[in-house]
Amino acid sequence: MSAEEILNDLKENVIKRAPGNAVITDVEFEGSEVVIYAKNPELFSNNFIKELAKDFRKRIAIRPDPSVLLEPDIAKERILRIVPDDAEVVNCIFDANTGEVIIESKKPGLVIGKEGSTLEDIKKEIQWAPKPVRAPPIPSDTIKAIRSTMYRERADVKDILRRIGRRIHRDVKLRDDCWIRTSFLGGSREVGRTCLYHQTPESRIMIDCGINVGMDDEKAFPHFDAPEFSIEEIDAVVVTHAHLDHCGFIPGLFRYGYDGPVYCTKPTRDLMTLLQKDYIDIAEKEGKPVPYTSRDVKNAIKHTIPLDYGVTTDIAPAVKLTLHNAGHILGSAIAHCHIGDGLYNVAYTGDIKFEASRLLEPAVCQFPRLETLIMESTYGGYDDVLPERDETEKELLKVISETIAKGGKVILPVFGIGRAQELMLVLEEGYNQGIFNAPVFLDGMIWEATAIHTAYPEYLSKNMRNRIFHEGDNPFLSEVFKKVKDTKDRRNVIGRDEPCIILATSGMLTGGPSVEYFKTLADDEKNAIVFVGYQSEGTLGRKIQKGWKEIPLMGKNGKTRAIKVKLSVHTLEGFSGHCDRKQLIKYLRKLKPIPDKILTIHGEASKCIDLASTAYKLFKKETKAPMNLDSIRLR
Amino acid sequence: MSAEEILNDLKENVIKRAPGNAVITDVEFEGSEVVIYAKNPELFSNNFIKELAKDFRKRIAIRPDPSVLLEPDIAKERILRIVPDDAEVVNCIFDANTGEVIIESKKPGLVIGKEGSTLEDIKKEIQWAPKPVRAPPIPSDTIKAIRSTMYRERADVKDILRRIGRRIHRDVKLRDDCWIRTSFLGGSREVGRTCLYHQTPESRIMIDCGINVGMDDEKAFPHFDAPEFSIEEIDAVVVTHAHLDHCGFIPGLFRYGYDGPVYCTKPTRDLMTLLQKDYIDIAEKEGKPVPYTSRDVKNAIKHTIPLDYGVTTDIAPAVKLTLHNAGHILGSAIAHCHIGDGLYNVAYTGDIKFEASRLLEPAVCQFPRLETLIMESTYGGYDDVLPERDETEKELLKVISETIAKGGKVILPVFGIGRAQELMLVLEEGYNQGIFNAPVFLDGMIWEATAIHTAYPEYLSKNMRNRIFHEGDNPFLSEVFKKVKDTKDRRNVIGRDEPCIILATSGMLTGGPSVEYFKTLADDEKNAIVFVGYQSEGTLGRKIQKGWKEIPLMGKNGKTRAIKVKLSVHTLEGFSGHCDRKQLIKYLRKLKPIPDKILTIHGEASKCIDLASTAYKLFKKETKAPMNLDSIRLR
Ligand SMILES: [Zn+2]
Ligand SMILES: [Zn+2]
Ligand SMILES: [Zn+2]
Ligand SMILES: [Zn+2]
Ligand SMILES: [Zn+2]
Repeated sequence: MSAEEILNDLKENVIKRAPGNAVITDVEFEGSEVVIYAKNPELFSNNFIKELAKDFRKRIAIRPDPSVLLEPDIAKERILRIVPDDAEVVNCIFDANTGEVIIESKKPGLVIGKEGSTLEDIKKEIQWAPKPVRAPPIPSDTIKAIRSTMYRERADVKDILRRIGRRIHRDVKLRDDCWIRTSFLGGSREVGRTCLYHQTPESRIMIDCGINVGMDDEKAFPHFDAPEFSIEEIDAVVVTHAHLDHCGFIPGLFRYGYDGPVYCTKPTRDLMTLLQKDYIDIAEKEGKPVPYTSRDVKNAIKHTIPLDYGVTTDIAPAVKLTLHNAGHILGSAIAHCHIGDGLYNVAYTGDIKFEASRLLEPAVCQFPRLETLIMESTYGGYDDVLPERDETEKELLKVISETIAKGGKVILPVFGIGRAQELMLVLEEGYNQGIFNAPVFLDGMIWEATAIHTAYPEYLSKNMRNRIFHEGDNPFLSEVFKKVKDTKDRRNVIGRDEPCIILATSGMLTGGPSVEYFKTLADDEKNAIVFVGYQSEGTLGRKIQKGWKEIPLMGKNGKTRAIKVKLSVHTLEGFSGHCDRKQLIKYLRKLKPIPDKILTIHGEASKCIDLASTAYKLFKKETKAPMNLDSIRLR
Repeated sequence: MSAEEILNDLKENVIKRAPGNAVITDVEFEGSEVVIYAKNPELFSNNFIKELAKDFRKRIAIRPDPSVLLEPDIAKERILRIVPDDAEVVNCIFDANTGEVIIESKKPGLVIGKEGSTLEDIKKEIQWAPKPVRAPPIPSDTIKAIRSTMYRERADVKDILRRIGRRIHRDVKLRDDCWIRTSFLGGSREVGRTCLYHQTPESRIMIDCGINVGMDDEKAFPHFDAPEFSIEEIDAVVVTHAHLDHCGFIPGLFRYGYDGPVYCTKPTRDLMTLLQKDYIDIAEKEGKPVPYTSRDVKNAIKHTIPLDYGVTTDIAPAVKLTLHNAGHILGSAIAHCHIGDGLYNVAYTGDIKFEASRLLEPAVCQFPRLETLIMESTYGGYDDVLPERDETEKELLKVISETIAKGGKVILPVFGIGRAQELMLVLEEGYNQGIFNAPVFLDGMIWEATAIHTAYPEYLSKNMRNRIFHEGDNPFLSEVFKKVKDTKDRRNVIGRDEPCIILATSGMLTGGPSVEYFKTLADDEKNAIVFVGYQSEGTLGRKIQKGWKEIPLMGKNGKTRAIKVKLSVHTLEGFSGHCDRKQLIKYLRKLKPIPDKILTIHGEASKCIDLASTAYKLFKKETKAPMNLDSIRLR
């Protein structure tokens, strides 16, 4: 049945079953959902929607017709009039696409009112469906910008969603002997430019599309020269998480003609926007070519369909997607694709952490069904056993207190996202316990990333959620943290006599403030640099880590200058957001069900091969460490 | 450098170096060759051509300008006038494309004359370059038709060759990090629809494009739904040999828009034309859909560039092809691709026989370089040891003499090509030795295929060549063989009271006369059927072989009728044109050099897997039995 026929069928049914006085104005696909617009949506019961959804095997939503919604400015005024001042409403966010208004306040209980009476009053007055939430403690510019884009370009966004919906529900003949194949376009036997390409006779799904920031040539990007790749044919793009090695090229896809959906969690959407813009900024500053502009980033945002963990959605004919927590960074996901009707299930872990961290819950390891698991191998080598987390924290605080005692500065190059926030929590605790007494400067995007963390409490660990929202004790707001706002600030930090700690991006010194701090602080043996994340081959970080005593760096005048490396260099691997070998094996042991096939990627060749061989010994199932450009038939 | 620039460069050079009185009329690519047309080609020495070829690293040919060539009719008259009658000239074949005339005669020595004097006289008189050959003992309609097509459509053929030449020499930037990949589009872990697809960043080479005659649905054809396959992108198609499981879909490629070259030996071109036409005929008779018409077959012929064994030719930018004898059927080849400049070599065996047969020399097993070997596995299973050849011949003659003694008829279903001619040689010997005394009827395309065999003595074993051409003793002309010309003839054979032997196509009873004989002779236990070739799963032959006692067959009236199987059923595997397990292992042992990777295809799944595992044990190199739709990176 064509999309048009399904819609007509649905329309007839809705009209037949709806209460007599209901005024239905439209029935349309938006993404994989069917949306019914009505002038009086309150007439439709939840039961009505459930029944319809069951009969048509589609997700159904009922929304107010735009014509009945009050203008946002006026609606906001009315909300503020109805809600008591004690509630301290901070922000009203109108989502034209869903007809919802998110009301951020300090005391959401007062927005709800006794048995929801205040909410009902609001609803009657403005027609928008009010969603009361606690105001996030730190405002985020990124989120604000994304929301305003989505509102300003709501007509365009709706148009995009309708087009996607029609593509998902297009008429295809599904064959019994459906084959399923995955091509490895990047990130196999290497770290960087991760890109998987699932193919069936009817559909093409791309999962992740990263860049290798350590490379300057075409090895920075996935193998778009793979003969099976065709940008026009892609049905859906899925992003597991916001690190650039997984999402760095997403805006590039739009630049080169992609016009379909991007599925990821909301935190991933926001964090990846932040990182992509940062990537453009750094590259422009360094005069390096960037494969896209902020226009393309915006276009990607408009095409993004956010998914919560555990929600299953159609993304192509006979392909369903569910995202599951990966425990790696905020919003990071395992992408589980269900193909055909009970035919085949393939999950890709993205990057995973199988241990509770300060911020996040451990990765999900149980699935309703699973035939192939594609898993990361960053620390999959036989020797990749990392130190325990609490030992590592002690070690870090020791290096810091010693460096500060002798009047030095500590550079902590970090990914802005994930490790940075984990370290902040460790440092805040150490400071409170009196282990060191010096400010912690945050440079690069760390502050903004932290703001995004506090905007999505439901993605944080239970502990953190409790601490921030119920105990009113937000560690990120500690006085020990100082934001470095601009280059003048930065010069002050570098020039100051007192010791301090500097958390700065990028984590591999491939550009950004961490390089600036390194350049000026490297020459002094009182200082220290502590690596807490993976350093890709070819990056400045890797060179320092390897113990180079002199490093040639291009100055602003285009001349090469040798930086003498005298500061003490430390590597603390226990903070990794990745599973170490022990955890990877534990993950495999806990995995349910045991898949028929395990493919290992995202690691140096030897690590992928070691892990594949370990998985084989464990399960006696087919395992393999594919190469880039291999395409493996799954079924 | 673009094709145009190369040509201009060459033209300048030719003009500069040529003798002063030479009149050069054109310089053009034709296929991978550069052809220089001159009004007086005799002025150019062999040395001149060699030097030019060396300097430009291209194959160079000098040909007479068409304007100086005499009209074929007149030229033939002059030839007959010059050559003494004793030479018994049978045929003059003018190849407008090369400016050559093949003079077929009973005594070619007399065409040559004393120290080549007669040849020189001819040349001066007609300008065509005369090539004297011994007239083949049996005329072939197929070859005649192909030659006449090529002559009639010479302008079109030249056009095609020029277009191909320009495509081969197109301007591409070759990258250092060139990857090489092979996709398995059919014939992996199965027999039938063989199709390999080599890919580099700049080129696409298809090797073989077969059909599975035992299948009625899309499983009959290779996986053209593979996402990397695109008919417009194919640079070259190579055919290893004329069996339909390797070439059955070649005309279909042209039907669906392919317009490039097909590389194979001349015997393969002629035999595959014969088999494709036969396939169309049978399918039409049975009312089955055929994916192409005789128009497409003709188009394929026009696009075929014949290659002799051992000749290396450019087939795409940075891809060279060499065909080597495979010992399987007349003209069968191993396709050895040399990619890049000393970068990588991949050979595909096609079907091989690694033992001298009555007709052919054993397969080539030594190559200048070899990184990946893709090999057939028809009899690669642990138990696939076939009986010795001489034992099998005795066995066959025993079944025949016994059946004939009790007044029965023996059906020998055969592929028209290869096994049929081998059996004829065995039967002719047995008849001469008095082991049986009954006629051997040849039905289907056997006679025509035999004619093609005698047209290419240089592709036969030394023994056969000697016997036919030097000892004047052509076993194919023995009185024991009777040609069945039409259905009336066939009815007479079936109805006759005397015992006889019937060699009939198709070999797997998937249609053709063998099915007709079986239908009427199956019911009588005096008769016998002897299978001498591989029977694919799903074919009628396989059912009989498995011992079905009743077989439902569709009659001409569309009703199903059950055939009772009472005749005695024999299977003699020792005649196989394939290596058995012993020979496959021997082939691997003799292989030089030992490749880095061995991929096994063309066999049931278990046989491919067994052979891959044996090859691994032998060499401790990477081996694999890929699946259809797997795409494996070689480099
Ligand atoms: Zn990551
Ligand atoms: Zn990663
Ligand atoms: Zn064959
Ligand atoms: Zn074959
Ligand atoms: Zn053509």
